Amino acid sequence: MSTVYDVTRWKIPGQPRVTAEYDIGAIINSIIADVKAKQPNQSSKPGAVIYIPPGDYSLKTRVVIDISYLQIKGSGHGFASLSIRYNAGDTSSWHELWPGASHIKVENTDGHAEAFLVSRGGAPRLSSIEFRDFCIDGLSFTPHQNSYRNGKVGIRIASDNDALKVAGMGFVYLERALVNNGADAFDVTDNFIAECGSCVELTGASQASKITNNLLGAGFVGFSIFAENAEGLLVQGNNIFPRGRSMVHLKTSNRCSITGNRFQAFYPGMIDFEGINKENLIVANHFRRVPEGFPPLQDFNNGKDDLYGLIHLVGDNNMVSTNIFSFDVPGSAITPSGATPTMILVAAGDANFISNNHFVTNMPTKHVVLDASTTNTKILDSGTADQILAFTTNYTLRPTP
Amino acid sequence: MSTVYDVTRWKIPGQPRVTAEYDIGAIINSIIADVKAKQPNQSSKPGAVIYIPPGDYSLKTRVVIDISYLQIKGSGHGFASLSIRYNAGDTSSWHELWPGASHIKVENTDGHAEAFLVSRGGAPRLSSIEFRDFCIDGLSFTPHQNSYRNGKVGIRIASDNDALKVAGMGFVYLERALVNNGADAFDVTDNFIAECGSCVELTGASQASKITNNLLGAGFVGFSIFAENAEGLLVQGNNIFPRGRSMVHLKTSNRCSITGNRFQAFYPGMIDFEGINKENLIVANHFRRVPEGFPPLQDFNNGKDDLYGLIHLVGDNNMVSTNIFSFDVPGSAITPSGATPTMILVAAGDANFISNNHFVTNMPTKHVVLDASTTNTKILDSGTADQILAFTTNYTLRPTP
Amino acid sequence: MSTVYDVTRWKIPGQPRVTAEYDIGAIINSIIADVKAKQPNQSSKPGAVIYIPPGDYSLKTRVVIDISYLQIKGSGHGFASLSIRYNAGDTSSWHELWPGASHIKVENTDGHAEAFLVSRGGAPRLSSIEFRDFCIDGLSFTPHQNSYRNGKVGIRIASDNDALKVAGMGFVYLERALVNNGADAFDVTDNFIAECGSCVELTGASQASKITNNLLGAGFVGFSIFAENAEGLLVQGNNIFPRGRSMVHLKTSNRCSITGNRFQAFYPGMIDFEGINKENLIVANHFRRVPEGFPPLQDFNNGKDDLYGLIHLVGDNNMVSTNIFSFDVPGSAITPSGATPTMILVAAGDANFISNNHFVTNMPTKHVVLDASTTNTKILDSGTADQILAFTTNYTLRPTP
Repeated sequence: MSTVYDVTRWKIPGQPRVTAEYDIGAIINSIIADVKAKQPNQSSKPGAVIYIPPGDYSLKTRVVIDISYLQIKGSGHGFASLSIRYNAGDTSSWHELWPGASHIKVENTDGHAEAFLVSRGGAPRLSSIEFRDFCIDGLSFTPHQNSYRNGKVGIRIASDNDALKVAGMGFVYLERALVNNGADAFDVTDNFIAECGSCVELTGASQASKITNNLLGAGFVGFSIFAENAEGLLVQGNNIFPRGRSMVHLKTSNRCSITGNRFQAFYPGMIDFEGINKENLIVANHFRRVPEGFPPLQDFNNGKDDLYGLIHLVGDNNMVSTNIFSFDVPGSAITPSGATPTMILVAAGDANFISNNHFVTNMPTKHVVLDASTTNTKILDSGTADQILAFTTNYTLRPTP
Repeated sequence: MSTVYDVTRWKIPGQPRVTAEYDIGAIINSIIADVKAKQPNQSSKPGAVIYIPPGDYSLKTRVVIDISYLQIKGSGHGFASLSIRYNAGDTSSWHELWPGASHIKVENTDGHAEAFLVSRGGAPRLSSIEFRDFCIDGLSFTPHQNSYRNGKVGIRIASDNDALKVAGMGFVYLERALVNNGADAFDVTDNFIAECGSCVELTGASQASKITNNLLGAGFVGFSIFAENAEGLLVQGNNIFPRGRSMVHLKTSNRCSITGNRFQAFYPGMIDFEGINKENLIVANHFRRVPEGFPPLQDFNNGKDDLYGLIHLVGDNNMVSTNIFSFDVPGSAITPSGATPTMILVAAGDANFISNNHFVTNMPTKHVVLDASTTNTKILDSGTADQILAFTTNYTLRPTP
Repeated sequence: MSTVYDVTRWKIPGQPRVTAEYDIGAIINSIIADVKAKQPNQSSKPGAVIYIPPGDYSLKTRVVIDISYLQIKGSGHGFASLSIRYNAGDTSSWHELWPGASHIKVENTDGHAEAFLVSRGGAPRLSSIEFRDFCIDGLSFTPHQNSYRNGKVGIRIASDNDALKVAGMGFVYLERALVNNGADAFDVTDNFIAECGSCVELTGASQASKITNNLLGAGFVGFSIFAENAEGLLVQGNNIFPRGRSMVHLKTSNRCSITGNRFQAFYPGMIDFEGINKENLIVANHFRRVPEGFPPLQDFNNGKDDLYGLIHLVGDNNMVSTNIFSFDVPGSAITPSGATPTMILVAAGDANFISNNHFVTNMPTKHVVLDASTTNTKILDSGTADQILAFTTNYTLRPTP
């Protein structure tokens, strides 16, 4: 009884003419049914591996995963830029038009938003499902190719889960690439997720997860990384490129680490805090802010102005230290017109700690701005007195000498 | 002559009825014997790959690996929490009971402690053996399921070795998950090692190794990471959760890096130095200390009191900088009763450098305590004068303004 | 129509006697031709995976890759130290002599330097080619085994490219292991690249790439990491050992991050800047400098003296913060004789920011030296006034208290 499945060799009972090329979703669902039928015993349900060889596969039917330990694995993340292609004009001479490798074309003709839905009721939580080394491609956006909108979700994990892993994957042209609701020890590593509305979203609540060693870049409508009610998320060693309405968006999340990342953005709000977020660590990152450089997307932005802050803090006892900020935006592109851009805005909260940051800017900026409601902020070695703007007297400043 | 083996397809010569399900250890030993028989020539010993498909495999016989370049590979780390299950009461309605994927059940009926022993005499050292993407499960603890004791060792590497790799693995309910004695350039990455007495131990001596991008969490009896006589170990980008008697325990180890990790602990001694340890770097980490939250384990701890320090330094010229410490323990749980908890204790040594740390605590604490024997410690921007306690005058303090 | 190839099972049309063992290059080129013949349609070119089982394979013919999404994959990086072996004297009793796993022996009898050349004209750029988990071995150096010279290149990517990946590979005894000219979002992760003249070189120009979580160590003639005209390169979480003329060499590169790495070196110039390099971030690294310890290589070095700096900065607004420097070189080995060694040399440039570094040295050293042309350097908490040497008055110093 083999636990190793190949989507190109599987036949759906009673539907021998359905191929993986025609509907890989139906094929994988049929394989999962087979796994479940062959592992009825509570004491022995090791799952299976489903292999997707390189190829182009339409997904017409949503895959529903309700067993632990399933690994779905391909032979390459297969990313290619659809944004460049759709904005390139005549591509008749191009070598190839689409992403590739183990390439799933999400057509969603069944009315569902997701390519993959992971969900199960009862106990225990789903554990250790793995997605590895294949490509989920949303194909196109609507109503135009630069909208980042099409309603498609690559993977949505909908029920509480433990030790799931997404590694080596490619995601492209999905409105939402990867959504996990209720993650514990979730591992998102070594993926290539770009040209999606949002890349990685940890919704509901999560703990002890990590998003490490990835290449990421969301659209202006969404988030490269979003986490709500997260505890102890580690965002480490990622190279995150534009666009992204925000690059890391924390909502009522505490004790997360954002360390050792490289961020490049076209808008303010690179790191954005919504609600009260406490005791987060933002250290050793490179923040680069420039204007949008790609003409087809120069009409779009995230709606935030240059007073919003490259980092927008709301909450208590967050530590922002030992980062470099490189800001190079022409004066004509600053909003509101004539404003002095803000690098770090403490919009609300107590006892935030901002130290040892270096700023390189092509115009005068305020390195740190403290709103009137803020209390007990400490600002050390992060600018001269002129580069700090406080609407309160309740703070401590040691200017950079 | 194939070098690709599948444990489910191998028959032991003369013992055709032994299956991988019955004793994967005997099967793998037989495969290794076959590899050795087919590669007798010193000039051509490329090794082999042994594939473990998803399934439940008993290991009755210890595997002994004495050839370089062997890769043992499965299709998923298969972790599931046995701790939750064993403490859950009635699990008759549960979907599944055990870890899964490529799942080895360590039964050790041969009297040996190890599931896998890697050892060889002579020259050269064993090189480039790889363990990838499977699960080693110790099944149960004794005398009760919360002891973290059963004498079982997942992988013990016993002779000097070079360039070995453990990646994508799962380890659960082993007293010691992974032990390497004599490591050079050892690579432990992207693993899930939890609910083991100890997770990763580098014994003897090691150099130039790395433990990066893992999810780890040991039991109260052992260590998430232990290294003795290590030179230049890199502990980077890990998310390390409780419990762990200590999370990183260095013994006479020098010039190691502990950077960019997230640590959560239930006890003091999160980073613990034994013997003299020099020139180690502890930077950009998140330290979270709370009380044990899981009722079945609330009677256990590591025996250290709150004066021990979340970081306990012994040695010279260690640098502790740009970390955040978040301490939230009810006063009633502090030991000794009424004590003021210590965050960083310099127990002994010269010229330790502690700078730019932020502390968030639910009660007054001492951010840094210097024992009487310490000399030349520098403490910069890590607390007010009141938050530093020195039993010596031989130190320099620049209080946080 | 399978897209999964195994080099040991492929026959070259018309040349049935050529095996992968005899010339894996010819085999792979023939497989690529087959992939191209079977995927003529611009709208469906997903590529293929070429599997290299463990084995010893001669490469006589250069592989040329001109299709996107090809994955070449083995079963292990197979590194073994040839340097130790070649300097060991009598190895007649050794268990094995060569690297192994999926082991390609680069013989280059076709007159080409490269084992693998990736190149294509026209549009789009090549995307998402992946090299995974095999070994490229240059076999020997000339004219002697400690020269790091043989003219051999492991992989050269010669045309602009997007989203390529090199992961889990081993490279040994190549003059140049991996060269990418024109990289966008290049991912070099989890590799073992040692005993090569140079390890990773990003030539031409690159953007948004990362070199993370690797074990690296070049020879004295080359670079562990080289990048020219790089924008936003992330060098993160690597353990980089000797020798390396420099360990990270940036040439006219801007806004790169070098964070969380462990560096050990035998020469000055561990991080070396050539031309003007701006706004780079060097944070949370461990720098260890000792003399060459391996007798056969003690006659070699990179030609730089101890006034060159362990870090040699040229350019503006670079940030060097929160690193530890451990220097232990006998006085007799210092050049020029009697010189006071320099840890960080700002050789030229404006507004470099050096803060919160700790230095451990076995003799008096200058922690920071500012050349006469430098302007507006800030030096905070990185040494006493005596440990700073400035040939200019245009700087700001806050000595470590």
